[in-house]
Amino acid sequence: MSDDVAAPTEFEIPEGYALLDWRRGFGRQIGPLYRRAANGSYAMGFRVEEHHTNGMSNAHGGMLMSFADMAWGHIVSVEQSSYWVTVRLTLDFLASAHLGDWVEGAGEVLSREDGLYVVRGRIWSADRQLITGSGVFKAIQKREPRPGEKAYVAKS
Amino acid sequence: MSDDVAAPTEFEIPEGYALLDWRRGFGRQIGPLYRRAANGSYAMGFRVEEHHTNGMSNAHGGMLMSFADMAWGHIVSVEQSSYWVTVRLTLDFLASAHLGDWVEGAGEVLSREDGLYVVRGRIWSADRQLITGSGVFKAIQKREPRPGEKAYVAKS
Repeated sequence: MSDDVAAPTEFEIPEGYALLDWRRGFGRQIGPLYRRAANGSYAMGFRVEEHHTNGMSNAHGGMLMSFADMAWGHIVSVEQSSYWVTVRLTLDFLASAHLGDWVEGAGEVLSREDGLYVVRGRIWSADRQLITGSGVFKAIQKREPRPGEKAYVAKS
Repeated sequence: MSDDVAAPTEFEIPEGYALLDWRRGFGRQIGPLYRRAANGSYAMGFRVEEHHTNGMSNAHGGMLMSFADMAWGHIVSVEQSSYWVTVRLTLDFLASAHLGDWVEGAGEVLSREDGLYVVRGRIWSADRQLITGSGVFKAIQKREPRPGEKAYVAKS
């Protein structure tokens, strides 16, 4: 008997964050991702693991972009509980995140018209800005409000 | 005895494309990706699999962005055989790719100064444009030329 059995990987996850339990598709593939939500505000986060890295053991640009897309577009879900698609995204890369870093992201609405959201977003790790940018997201089909979304909070 | 054993997934890969054999990190995580290269020109490609999809069984926006980053920035490798990082990326999403679609991407140099490349790129599937955009990529450390790169072709 030995104790070198495979144990689930454990990370220290900052307080307030809960796992986004995506069980399929690209969301699962690039996970685990986390979210904190309170009073209609939110942020998303992830710990940089090996499968997120480039050849320099930093978070791959593609991973940070995918995360930015999700973290910034998520505000459409928060605001009006609907599915959404990305129309345009502009990202400025300011600094890199290293293996093991905790990375966070969030967006704020600049304008909203006919279901088209213009969002200003940022991605950061501790006190370092990693990406700033903006996105245009189009709300499509409405769905049932979920925890952390304004309509859900209003109902409960 | 039965023949329901797990067989390796096989895809029809368009002629001229070869697998990019990334064995670690984010490149492996979102693969398999392919490349064709001839006479200093190139394109990258992938088949949309389940682990690339969003809830609508289309290629996830994050996947297309990650692919665009790699496919457009790759021109720095072709031109001068060096590692590179992404400085800025702007993407306009025009259409979606469905599960099973073959998606391709490539970039062309608009300007190049002090190792800073401005690249115009596109992502397409058959005759449909999926994304157009531009990127700014910074060449960093030089490395040995690899097959399909201009310096490699010139040497051989």
